[in-house]
Formats: sequence, structure tokens, C-alpha cells
Amino acid sequence: MRARCEALGLEIALYQPLRDFEAMPEAAFAANLRRAEAKFDVMEQLGADTVLVCSNVSPQAIDDDALAAAQLRELASRAAERGIRIAYEALAWGRHVRDYDHAWRIAEAGDHPSLGTCLDSFHILSRGADPAGIRDIPAEKIFFLQLADAPDLVMDVLQWSRHYRCFPGQGGFDLAGFMEHVRAAGYAGPLSLEVFNDVFRQADPQRMAVDAMRSLLLLEGGLPEAAPLRGYAFAELAIEPEASAGVERLLIAMGLRHAGQHRTKAVQLWRHGDVRVLVNHDEGGDPRLTAIAVESADPLRSAERAERLLAPVLSRDRGPGEADLSAIAAPDGTSVFFCRTDAADGWVGDFLYPSPPTQPGPATELTGIDHVALSQPFDYFDEAALFYRSVLGLELEEGAELVAPDGLVRSRAARSADGSVRFALSVPVVRHGGPGHQHVAFATGDALATARAMAERGVPLLPIPGNYYDDLAARTDLDDDTIDQLRSLGVLYDAGERGELLHFYTATAGEQLFFEVLERRGGYDGYGAANSPVRLAALR
Amino acid sequence: MRARCEALGLEIALYQPLRDFEAMPEAAFAANLRRAEAKFDVMEQLGADTVLVCSNVSPQAIDDDALAAAQLRELASRAAERGIRIAYEALAWGRHVRDYDHAWRIAEAGDHPSLGTCLDSFHILSRGADPAGIRDIPAEKIFFLQLADAPDLVMDVLQWSRHYRCFPGQGGFDLAGFMEHVRAAGYAGPLSLEVFNDVFRQADPQRMAVDAMRSLLLLEGGLPEAAPLRGYAFAELAIEPEASAGVERLLIAMGLRHAGQHRTKAVQLWRHGDVRVLVNHDEGGDPRLTAIAVESADPLRSAERAERLLAPVLSRDRGPGEADLSAIAAPDGTSVFFCRTDAADGWVGDFLYPSPPTQPGPATELTGIDHVALSQPFDYFDEAALFYRSVLGLELEEGAELVAPDGLVRSRAARSADGSVRFALSVPVVRHGGPGHQHVAFATGDALATARAMAERGVPLLPIPGNYYDDLAARTDLDDDTIDQLRSLGVLYDAGERGELLHFYTATAGEQLFFEVLERRGGYDGYGAANSPVRLAALR
Repeated sequence: MRARCEALGLEIALYQPLRDFEAMPEAAFAANLRRAEAKFDVMEQLGADTVLVCSNVSPQAIDDDALAAAQLRELASRAAERGIRIAYEALAWGRHVRDYDHAWRIAEAGDHPSLGTCLDSFHILSRGADPAGIRDIPAEKIFFLQLADAPDLVMDVLQWSRHYRCFPGQGGFDLAGFMEHVRAAGYAGPLSLEVFNDVFRQADPQRMAVDAMRSLLLLEGGLPEAAPLRGYAFAELAIEPEASAGVERLLIAMGLRHAGQHRTKAVQLWRHGDVRVLVNHDEGGDPRLTAIAVESADPLRSAERAERLLAPVLSRDRGPGEADLSAIAAPDGTSVFFCRTDAADGWVGDFLYPSPPTQPGPATELTGIDHVALSQPFDYFDEAALFYRSVLGLELEEGAELVAPDGLVRSRAARSADGSVRFALSVPVVRHGGPGHQHVAFATGDALATARAMAERGVPLLPIPGNYYDDLAARTDLDDDTIDQLRSLGVLYDAGERGELLHFYTATAGEQLFFEVLERRGGYDGYGAANSPVRLAALR
Repeated sequence: MRARCEALGLEIALYQPLRDFEAMPEAAFAANLRRAEAKFDVMEQLGADTVLVCSNVSPQAIDDDALAAAQLRELASRAAERGIRIAYEALAWGRHVRDYDHAWRIAEAGDHPSLGTCLDSFHILSRGADPAGIRDIPAEKIFFLQLADAPDLVMDVLQWSRHYRCFPGQGGFDLAGFMEHVRAAGYAGPLSLEVFNDVFRQADPQRMAVDAMRSLLLLEGGLPEAAPLRGYAFAELAIEPEASAGVERLLIAMGLRHAGQHRTKAVQLWRHGDVRVLVNHDEGGDPRLTAIAVESADPLRSAERAERLLAPVLSRDRGPGEADLSAIAAPDGTSVFFCRTDAADGWVGDFLYPSPPTQPGPATELTGIDHVALSQPFDYFDEAALFYRSVLGLELEEGAELVAPDGLVRSRAARSADGSVRFALSVPVVRHGGPGHQHVAFATGDALATARAMAERGVPLLPIPGNYYDDLAARTDLDDDTIDQLRSLGVLYDAGERGELLHFYTATAGEQLFFEVLERRGGYDGYGAANSPVRLAALR
């Protein structure tokens, strides 16, 4: 193992752990010392010079800090003979020692050069402890640092720790603040990731390693600042030629028009005002969203940051004179482009225009893309959250669990500070077969008028069962007339902490792709999660 | 919906729930009454005459039992005008009302013929409440009964309730005792299953319905008693002809001999003393265990009980004069036969004997089948536990989680009271691809001697890394000589609460099938779970 690590350029920085070691009755302590010597033998073979001792959970453990310190000192003095250091850590569920400052006081009292402490962000932050006290620990006594994030859950801390840890930036802990205290203390050792996660355990290790490194790069800082994003340049759909007539009819009925043809590719530009959709006939398969282009204030900086954060950069076939669009692959395979549509050399120039661009549309029709909703590969939901957060500089919103006909669905959104770019991500709680849904949600200034116009133009709207409106009447103060209008058009309603949402859906084109139209009123900032069960049942 | 239910012979026995209803400030209560009237409209359409009101969780709720009772009385009097009854239930996480006796006191104080209580076994047993108080509730005031079991978990009760409930008999609650109290109270209404479970939600509904009914049949009682089981008649392997030479070599090296040929099928009997293995060449595919035959004191009664418990009964092609073996399909598709090998018309008579049966083997070789270990289909792990418990009358042991190279594995064993029949079931914690392992574990009286003999005869034993033995030396008091013997043969060691286990494994035949040989010393009663990580890593 040592040879293999050396060949890979890896160092075994910590051997772990010695459990149930300190503050023990004499006979048990003697047995523990024998066990430690055997472990030291293994460490010498591995070339590892630091061993973790986590605080005792045994019922035999004695609540006596002085005894703990004395026994750890004895262990350290034996370790020192071998050039080994003892890093003592408080487990959040230790029997008598659960807090990092308590563990440090014991290590300090042990008073041996080979005895120090190990800090684990999970054990500290899961208990709601103030990490500022880390600043008071001498740098040379912080022997090791273990980092983990975790979602905010109310559960037994041991189960939380062993099943739900995630990489920094994926959960709810303030790891950036934590690291500031560690840096202030002067710690300059390795940043280790100590992450136990049921999903990560069985996912592709190489991909997990990239995800892990991305989390550390973000935590470390020093990256090009994320360029501000301001809405969308376009969404790109892959529609095989056989399916194109149906999708064209749908786009026309939704108010878009064929407004351009790519110079060299089988790609059409469709638009309505500022709503731009590319239809790519070069790829076969089920109709689907293959790319989303965001407007970046500085596409080159966006691309540089993405590359620094290990996002896969996509190479593109480019004809002479065509725009150099920077594109990366999101964890679900969707391409993400960074564009400046108004730039002189922008992407629009790649298209031949059969008709002049239209004026911005009226508020009673589609006015833009509000968000895209993408179901994620099961193993990579946390990776996706970190990807959008780190690479695009978006903010993660709190997750929700939705009831779907074929199981629970976890959803989480990433959005720009101004709300102009939003990705709504979802994943089944239990992995099961079948492609997930993906949809493009268009904004409108008047959902009822838009729904009426679309229905008249023949858009196949998703039918909503009447019981939804009976229930809406029962649980809201909406007047009968409003309820009747919503009901007649299949428009859904939600009230948020602020504002209201009116939204409706088209039927799917193919198996997975559909469209949403939504009107945000009064600062409504969600995605209509309360309506997800009826929407998912209706889609099914 | 009503018409559909009527066509299916289904009754809508409960409409649920009205939430955050009682003990509210006046304005909120008035809005709640409007909401209730709208729900009553829906109930009339559905033909449902009872509605569940679960205890209030709203921050607005007032801690005032008299107010709660008065408001529920008002609701009940309005409901009564429609012929509707109000069933008030304590949620385990209600704001002020969490206990069933508390909810009942409020309903009693409400004092209205249309106001009663609903009992939910999860809400009661998850709080560790004594269900004996149910006996004091008048039968006509228990308007509804909801049943759920749950595994023993330490977690937020709301999460536990919403994600981990299971059918009675699958978890750790004493549902049989609970039902006795309910019966003693005189309740004669429906037994409803109120089960929220992430896995069940996305599993096959028909199969879930059968599983649910099986759990109720077991709870209801009145079944033929499970016939005592006493060890195994045989294990049957499906080996395609191309793979047979390799498996034959393996069986011979393990000490078995070809001892019979089925009269009409391409099935061979192999045996060593009381170890009997059938090799079936009629089925193609990867070598695997297809059937296990247990010795039943009364095979007909065993089969009758299985059929009453909705186990799929397998029809078999049977030649003239051949034994009528009762067989059922376990949830993973394995056939389970109920046999009496020593009966005059027993299954052994179906085989032509090329050689006389051998004598029982010496203790230094295989002496019998100890258990079979079967990985289960992901969706049906709880079904399997209930299947073995109910159909075969086995006892369920507590589950464990094992670390495997490709994720966590959950394991749980079912065993007969005397330990002579054992099924060790496993399932990945997160669903992922690939067939699971299955193995037959043979007993021996001397694992070291058997391992030595098998190694000499060329059995490909699973190689165990040396570090396992270094670690064993560090954490046990085994002497160096014992460690060296274990190491030289690849025999694993475990110490239980009682006794010790010595066991070893063969390499796999094909992708999924292998064999274990184990020696239980001093009443050891487990399966060597502590050695699973090294075993699973070595298999990989």
C-alpha cells in the first residue's frame, strides 16, 4: 500500500483511528497500549506519522480529564519513540468528551510534544459549537484538520455523521467561516476531507475525487471572481428531424417564430422578443434540453473560473468567423454556455436571418426564460449543487421533498443574486429507472392571458384535475371568479412568503421535455413546489 | 374516484387530514371552519363519512384543552349535519397534544356523538407510550385505527414517521401487543395501514399490496401454526452444462460426491454425509442458488400456512411416482421447499443411486448446511423479512450495516428458534447495479482442519490480506500460533457475546455464487459481520 501510494505521489498523512483509548481502567488501558503498539507497527510499514485518537465512547470510560490526559501522555511518549504523533479529537457523541475545546484542554494537560489535537468541522459544527475558540489553540498543537459539510437535518448525530456528510459547500455548515478561524490559529497542515455519505460510497470514485477537489478549491479561495450573470442568451433543444414538425407547431403556438439558421450547422434559432430557443437537428434521440446559455458580464472570466474549478470544458466545432462560445458540461451533461448576446462578435452573428428580429414581446406573452428545471443523475445531486454554486457563482436555496407518483423527489434550486438565472435541480430520493423530466420555464407578465392565447393557438396544455381547484377554493381566499379562470385554463396558484405565483405547463414533447409558463407577482421567489404533486401526477 | 372505488369493491373509509384545526385564535378558527365545509363537500362526493383531524402543529395553536374541545365540538356539530364523523388524533410531534390519551381526553370533553378519536400505532409506540390505556376508551369512540410498524431508529420522530414506517411485523414495534389492547377496547372497525416509506412509494404497488395484506393476516392470526423446521434437506444450484466441470471439481474438492441422478430431470444429487446439494443442469445463466429445501415436521401444514399468507405457490413438473414437493417462491425468486427427507415417499426416492449413501461425515469435514445468505431485490427487503418471519415462522434478528467496496450493505437474518434454519438477507443501502452475492454456508466441527483438507484438495479459497491478521493480533488475545494458523489458511475469526466463530470462503463460481465453511464454538450465534468488510473487499 505504501509503495502504491508513493508511486501515485500520495502521502498517508493520518492513520485512524484508535477508539475507546483514554480514561480507561488500568487493565483495559494496558490492553489498549498493546493494541496501539501493534497499530504503530502498521504505521511504520505505511510510513504514516500521525494517528487519530477519537474520544472514548465505551461504557468503561471514566469521566476524569486528568486520567485521560495522563493516559494520552503515556501513549504519546511511546509514540514519540517511533516518531509518531497522537492527534486527539472530540467525537460529537463521545461519552464524556464531545467538544473540541474540551479535547484540547485534555491534550494540553497531557503536555507532551507528540500529543496534539485534531479538529473535525462536522463534530464541531454539528453541535452548534462556536468555532472561534480554535484561534486560541497553538498552531503547532493542531496536528490535523478534517473537513466535512452536512445538510441541516434533525437526527441522531451519529447517524447524521455516518450517512449524510458531504463536501464543503454542499451542505448547510459555514465552512468558510470555520476555515477563517483555522487559518487565524496558524494551521498550515493538510486539509483532509472526512466525508461519510451513503451515495458517495457507491458513486464513481474518480468523479467523486474531482468533486472533492472542487470543494477544496472553492474553500481555499484565490479564484477569479464569478462574473455577474444576467439572464439567458438561449436554451438549446435537440430535436431529431422526425420529431421536428410537432415541436415546431408547439413553438409556433407558444408564440415563437423561426428567426434564423446557423451558418454551418443544422441549428435553427427560434425567438419571441427576448426569448431565444435553438433547435438542433443534428442529434437524435428523445427531444430534450441539451444546452443553456447564460449572459455573462465577462464570458472569458466565467470560463477561466470554470476551468480552475475543474469543470469539463467542451471543445466545439467552429466554422470560420463563428463566435468562440465558451462552454462547459454540467454534471447532468447539459452544456452551459457563457455569452454576451449584445457583443459585436456575439453568437447571434453565427445565424443567417430569414426575418428581422421581432420587437420585445408584450407582457401578455412570453417575456423571457425564468428558469430551467433539470432532473439530475442520482449519484451526482450534491455535485450538481456545488457545481452551480462554485462554477457559476450562484446561491443555493434550501431543498424540499416533493411527492411524486413514483416516489419522493428531492429538489433544490441555485439562483443568481438578482434571480435572473435559476436552475431548479431534482433527483429521486430512491434511485429508480426512467428518465427524469426537464423543462424550460418561460416568464410572462400575465399568466391567464398567456394561457388563454396559447390554448386558442392550440398549445397542448397539461390538464389539471378539478379537485385541485376545489381544494384551492377551500384553502385560500381567492374569489370564485379567479378560481373559475384558473380552472378553465389549467393554471396553478401558489402564495409564498412574499407574492403569488400563477403558472401552467404544456404536455411533454417526447418522454421528458416540457415547458412551463409562469407569472411572478409581488416578489414571489419560489418554484410552486406546493403544486408539484398535482403537476407530477398530471404529467404521469 | 368514488365510481372507480365502488367498481373495485373499495370503500373510502377515511378522508384525511384536516391539519392545524383546533385550539386556534378566533379568526383562524373561522377560516378553518370554511376550509372544513369545503372538505365536507369533497367527502360527500367521495362518499366518505369520517375525517381525520390530527393535532395542531401550528405556532398559532393555543395550549388550551378546553378551547380545543370546544372547537372540535363545533366542527363535529357541523359535520353531523352532513352525516360526517370527526376522528381526532394525536400526532407524535403535535404542538401541544402528542399523546393518544391526551387527544382522547379532549375528544371526550368535546362530548359530541360525531366526535371521537383515531389511534395510530406509530404515533403511540414511537413515543414509548403504554398502549394499555387504549382499553379505557369506549369502543364506539375509537372511530378509526391506523397501523404501522417501524425499525428502531434514533431520529427526529417526524422524519422517522415520514420515511421509515413499514408494515406490521417488519419493524421493531410490538404490534401484536398493541392490537390486543385495541381488541380489548372492543374496536371492530377497519384495520388501516398508514405507512410512509421511501422505498415502498416507488415499488410495484401490486406487490406492496400483497405484502401489506400478509402483514395484516399475520396480525389478525387464525393461521395454521408454523410447523417446526429442523435443518435443511438440500440446496439446489443451477449450473449450465458448460460450467458444470468447474463446479463439479469444486464440489469434489469440498468433499462432496455425485450420489444420485434424478429419474426424469437433468438434476444430480451430490452429498457428503448429511450435506446434500442438487445440481440442476436444466437452467442456463450464471451459476446460482435457485432453491433451498428445509426439513419440516409437517410439510403439508407448512404449505397450507404459506398459501394462506399469500406466498406464491410453485407448480412443478412431476413424473409418475415422483414425490409431491410443496414449494413456494421467496421474494428474491428462490424456491423454498418443505420436505421430510426420512419419509417413505420422500424426495430422495426421485433419484437413482449410482453409489450407496455415505456415512455421516467426520467433524473435520462438512457436517451440514448452517445457513444460506441471499442478497435481496432492493425494493423488497422488508417484504423478505416479513416473508421468512410469517411464512416460515422464523425469528427476525436485528439488522446491521456492513461496509462494502461499492457502498453500504444492510443485513438482517431470520432463524428458527433452534438455529437449525437460518437465512441471512442483505441489500445495498443505496440501489446500484450488478447482481448481489449469494452463498451457502456449510457447518464444520473443525474449521482449521477442514480448511487445510480443502486447500490440499485444491479448493480455491478466498485469499485474505495479511493486514487482517496483523489487526487481529492487535485487537484480540489470540496467541501467535493461532494467528499464524488462521493466516496460513485464510480463516477469519470473530468473538461474539457468546463463543467464537472460525470461518472461511471459497472464491466465487461465476459472478455471484460462493461457499462458506464455518465452525461455531461455544454457542456463537452470529454470522461474522465484523469480518464482512474484509470478505467483501477480498471478493471484489
